[in-house]
Amino acid sequence: MPIHHPAGTPPFNIIRMSHVELGVTDLAASRKFYTEILGMIETEQVGDSIYLRGLEERNHHSIILTQTAVPQALRLGFKVASEADLDRMAATFSEKGEPLTWAEPHGQGRSLRLRDPFGMPLEFCYEFAQAERMLQQYGAYRGCHPQRIDHFNCFTPNVQASHDFWALEMGFRTTEYTVSEDADPQLWAVWMHRKGNIHDMAFTNGTGPRLHHVALWVPTAMHIIHLCDLMSTTGYLSNMERGPGRHGISNAFFLYVRDPDGHRIEIYTSDYLTVDPDLEPIEWQLRDPQRQTLWGAPAPKSWFEEGSLFAGVPVQPPVLAAQPIIAP
Amino acid sequence: MPIHHPAGTPPFNIIRMSHVELGVTDLAASRKFYTEILGMIETEQVGDSIYLRGLEERNHHSIILTQTAVPQALRLGFKVASEADLDRMAATFSEKGEPLTWAEPHGQGRSLRLRDPFGMPLEFCYEFAQAERMLQQYGAYRGCHPQRIDHFNCFTPNVQASHDFWALEMGFRTTEYTVSEDADPQLWAVWMHRKGNIHDMAFTNGTGPRLHHVALWVPTAMHIIHLCDLMSTTGYLSNMERGPGRHGISNAFFLYVRDPDGHRIEIYTSDYLTVDPDLEPIEWQLRDPQRQTLWGAPAPKSWFEEGSLFAGVPVQPPVLAAQPIIAP
Amino acid sequence: MPIHHPAGTPPFNIIRMSHVELGVTDLAASRKFYTEILGMIETEQVGDSIYLRGLEERNHHSIILTQTAVPQALRLGFKVASEADLDRMAATFSEKGEPLTWAEPHGQGRSLRLRDPFGMPLEFCYEFAQAERMLQQYGAYRGCHPQRIDHFNCFTPNVQASHDFWALEMGFRTTEYTVSEDADPQLWAVWMHRKGNIHDMAFTNGTGPRLHHVALWVPTAMHIIHLCDLMSTTGYLSNMERGPGRHGISNAFFLYVRDPDGHRIEIYTSDYLTVDPDLEPIEWQLRDPQRQTLWGAPAPKSWFEEGSLFAGVPVQPPVLAAQPIIAP
Amino acid sequence: MPIHHPAGTPPFNIIRMSHVELGVTDLAASRKFYTEILGMIETEQVGDSIYLRGLEERNHHSIILTQTAVPQALRLGFKVASEADLDRMAATFSEKGEPLTWAEPHGQGRSLRLRDPFGMPLEFCYEFAQAERMLQQYGAYRGCHPQRIDHFNCFTPNVQASHDFWALEMGFRTTEYTVSEDADPQLWAVWMHRKGNIHDMAFTNGTGPRLHHVALWVPTAMHIIHLCDLMSTTGYLSNMERGPGRHGISNAFFLYVRDPDGHRIEIYTSDYLTVDPDLEPIEWQLRDPQRQTLWGAPAPKSWFEEGSLFAGVPVQPPVLAAQPIIAP
Repeated sequence: MPIHHPAGTPPFNIIRMSHVELGVTDLAASRKFYTEILGMIETEQVGDSIYLRGLEERNHHSIILTQTAVPQALRLGFKVASEADLDRMAATFSEKGEPLTWAEPHGQGRSLRLRDPFGMPLEFCYEFAQAERMLQQYGAYRGCHPQRIDHFNCFTPNVQASHDFWALEMGFRTTEYTVSEDADPQLWAVWMHRKGNIHDMAFTNGTGPRLHHVALWVPTAMHIIHLCDLMSTTGYLSNMERGPGRHGISNAFFLYVRDPDGHRIEIYTSDYLTVDPDLEPIEWQLRDPQRQTLWGAPAPKSWFEEGSLFAGVPVQPPVLAAQPIIAP
Repeated sequence: MPIHHPAGTPPFNIIRMSHVELGVTDLAASRKFYTEILGMIETEQVGDSIYLRGLEERNHHSIILTQTAVPQALRLGFKVASEADLDRMAATFSEKGEPLTWAEPHGQGRSLRLRDPFGMPLEFCYEFAQAERMLQQYGAYRGCHPQRIDHFNCFTPNVQASHDFWALEMGFRTTEYTVSEDADPQLWAVWMHRKGNIHDMAFTNGTGPRLHHVALWVPTAMHIIHLCDLMSTTGYLSNMERGPGRHGISNAFFLYVRDPDGHRIEIYTSDYLTVDPDLEPIEWQLRDPQRQTLWGAPAPKSWFEEGSLFAGVPVQPPVLAAQPIIAP
Repeated sequence: MPIHHPAGTPPFNIIRMSHVELGVTDLAASRKFYTEILGMIETEQVGDSIYLRGLEERNHHSIILTQTAVPQALRLGFKVASEADLDRMAATFSEKGEPLTWAEPHGQGRSLRLRDPFGMPLEFCYEFAQAERMLQQYGAYRGCHPQRIDHFNCFTPNVQASHDFWALEMGFRTTEYTVSEDADPQLWAVWMHRKGNIHDMAFTNGTGPRLHHVALWVPTAMHIIHLCDLMSTTGYLSNMERGPGRHGISNAFFLYVRDPDGHRIEIYTSDYLTVDPDLEPIEWQLRDPQRQTLWGAPAPKSWFEEGSLFAGVPVQPPVLAAQPIIAP
Repeated sequence: MPIHHPAGTPPFNIIRMSHVELGVTDLAASRKFYTEILGMIETEQVGDSIYLRGLEERNHHSIILTQTAVPQALRLGFKVASEADLDRMAATFSEKGEPLTWAEPHGQGRSLRLRDPFGMPLEFCYEFAQAERMLQQYGAYRGCHPQRIDHFNCFTPNVQASHDFWALEMGFRTTEYTVSEDADPQLWAVWMHRKGNIHDMAFTNGTGPRLHHVALWVPTAMHIIHLCDLMSTTGYLSNMERGPGRHGISNAFFLYVRDPDGHRIEIYTSDYLTVDPDLEPIEWQLRDPQRQTLWGAPAPKSWFEEGSLFAGVPVQPPVLAAQPIIAP
């Protein structure tokens, strides 16, 4: 059984994934896409970075767009339960000999930075500068009415190893997972959470580490349909990659779009509550087409192959050989 | 039986209700309400008039807002099938000795003006200047996504007389109607159409003639719920008069709002097709609370009592005595 | 200019398309699909035929399923404005020497049967037996809440010839059309109506005559999404052929499903009002991918190639050579 | 400042509210209401009790209906993080001298029962028998598609005392609260959670303890509108008490209905995520009409006055004098 329950571990409490910094090559083009089209709220611009948040979010930012020479993912951020959790986390990883650094990025309190086993740049903090809640300022609603950031999904060369790290060392719980069709089934993809829905972090087998997508939570499928209409008639037709549809895994209604630099954003709604510690993870077979889309429609090739590189992090080929992901 | 079927009459073909001119006392305040909040498209401003249309409408205007000293309804407009229909209509009413005039209002071809039996200012035309269709320019969508004008609803002092005029002389067909609870039931309200849905024109017993409301058609109930959220958090809370709810009559999902001058606008969706000439009108009893709201919620007093005066047209008390409209 | 406006013609008034008879090979399987999954109301079974109607429909039937040895389309039905229209229609086609017959099918008054230029079996009648309106019996709502039949779409070997017949001899008006990319553009597909929305009848270039699909009108996109969820988890996954999506042409939100015999049903909503006689038809280019799906997703091959044969009617290859319908 | 943050307390971990037992006087009538109308799934009937769950729920039950002579609330249930939490909870309350008992109710593991300061019957357990997840069996969806139980709302004679108990002794965090208009503002109502949305438990000033309502979470407002249509046309019109509408507090879209015994059920959706420990509670003023309904519509008198008695628990008048709840 490849899925570990993190009972009793670790000595710190990660509340949820909370923010991401993306390197973009044209800040103005990205601002337009994230605010006018998707509907994120701009908190402020500081230097070469734009700080964005969802309609319900009171933390200063959940997406940071920073001007860089090439598109890249810069850091994956998580919120912990208290300042003391940061110290316990630092102590835990120091003991293991992991390199870690402290930072105070704009809009955040002190933040602990470290790497996952494959080099993904992680950042943990407790405190955020506070911004106005826009949830009941409906005059500010645009695009697909994004309420909050929901999760990360990453390619990893070794899903089992990534799962083990996030389950045993970080305390994430698995809600659903896919196994390969071998005589000896291997973990192919896994959805793991801290905050009580399907996932804060998911991993899929592939050349990695790479960021597959960041997800924004929206209230209903109707908001996703409106985004399709909006993007397809405002010059963003080619940025629509996959969907809308219903995932078998998670039961979520989804749309995948690409930002002007190709970073993939999932617009996501209607999964389910997973706070029960004894919730049994759901197993899916790799060959079941309904795991990807309950309605049977295949995902495009780009969706399986493309992802954002983490700045300065080399990638490795996956340990599991490529398999036919979808029936032709 | 008080409902007349207009078989064989009249010698002209009214296609649908098509436009209305409302006198407003603060053009800037009205523009903001109709465009930013409701989401109508502004075609242009000419002098003291703003010309508005819905997202699917290609005719130059469906609502005209004109600066006037006091709030008032200026004309109720209808589209006929051809220029020849205008001439046949003029001949028909001339023969009856009715006063009629011709005009060429901005954005329209020649237009025939006459009065209904209670003095309501009516205007008929065939030709409109054409404007760009915005239906597939989703970037221009705002507010409740109003697609088109749908109907007028008017107070009349004599519903039977109004019905007879619009059925027998204008060729409107009745889809639903309310009768009073007398031993000798009287027509209390009537919904009449030309275009193939529940109504182009409705009449209710009351001091009149007055314009009760103009309706805008929107795609779904979700757009109406969003308008509620929008109005209630952008300073228009007191402009929300009734709803949202489901009418028993028409099955429509509705919201009634008041514009800055108190003109009542219904946001309306989900009625049914009525093009069959043999469609049997549906009778409702005045005491049935579900005729007004399928879900049983009463309408406020203002909804029964208030309406827009037609410029210069004196009102008369209703011929049917007031009855308890709703159970207390 | 290939589009004809039927001004002044013909001497009879077709109100709308109204019913269809489909030959099915397993009546029980078809009943289950149309009532439990789609949500049609069963009026009654008589002999080997099941009579179905939508939730708002008061006519006895809009879809008739009849047990036959092989799947086939048996008749396309239309409602006229009066009994006299039937006589005028009979006189008109008799004068032209067209063979025509009268019938009194179950649940209908006398019905005139004739053929279009390619042999499609047409039926016209005025009177239907009446059935209970279920629109406000929400306890009877199932599936996608189908309110009414909306339109036919047929393959024809000669779109121009089909258009000319339905425009000039039947009085249908064109709302939208596709032209080929030639130096001399040819009509490739056409959407034509009588009832005041996008179409009662559409034609596409292809081996024909064949019935491409029958459409059911539903209130909102949400009902279509629910049907996707329902079909994909109740054994009908392989019956989902295309969508959900937004058509560029018509702006309709759609889903195409196949019934147990392969007859194609479109679930359809959110087009626009077309009652204005001077509404300018909208031209689309064959190579524009957004004409088919505003969001850019291609239709599957089966959607372009498969259709229901009309019983006993031979098909012809299309006069226009095949063109790349969609970019690969 | 009347709101306490439960940092560091208590030594046990309540995951969420999880189940309720309601005494009903006609089991058949209640079953029909909860399954056919609301759409709950029946797990089984054992003796005089029916066990119900929502579509996503895998625990054996979230609502238990038990035949009793008079309508009453029998127990409010909560799930803890582990068996050890139950023991720590028992130890904690034993030390305080609180009477507590153990039970093994059908479908649950061992369950700790105790009383809150006003005598409300509470039950805590970790283990539930598991039932099939129906979330992706869309053929079983009925009514408003209830996915899970969401929260309790209770009248208490002393909101401050109830808040203090649930915050300091139970570890609940406050998300929103209402204060009276005094020179010395008092806590009038409070919304408190464990699971990461607005509330697991809310308290309102009034004669108590009484159960004001139990809430079911549904995916979207459209499902609530359908329930209105369904209830109003299947004999449950008088069971619709308030709404649909948008709460200012919580931003939830709501409908309040009464079951056949008068127990109040809220149908609830679209609040927001509250897992951040430093989320600042939102303060509302008692006189602000938008706190109750963002759109301004008042609640009926019954909604302020009526609630379900807890079996055998005497009620007390509220310590805060009645105040005008809503503007006339």
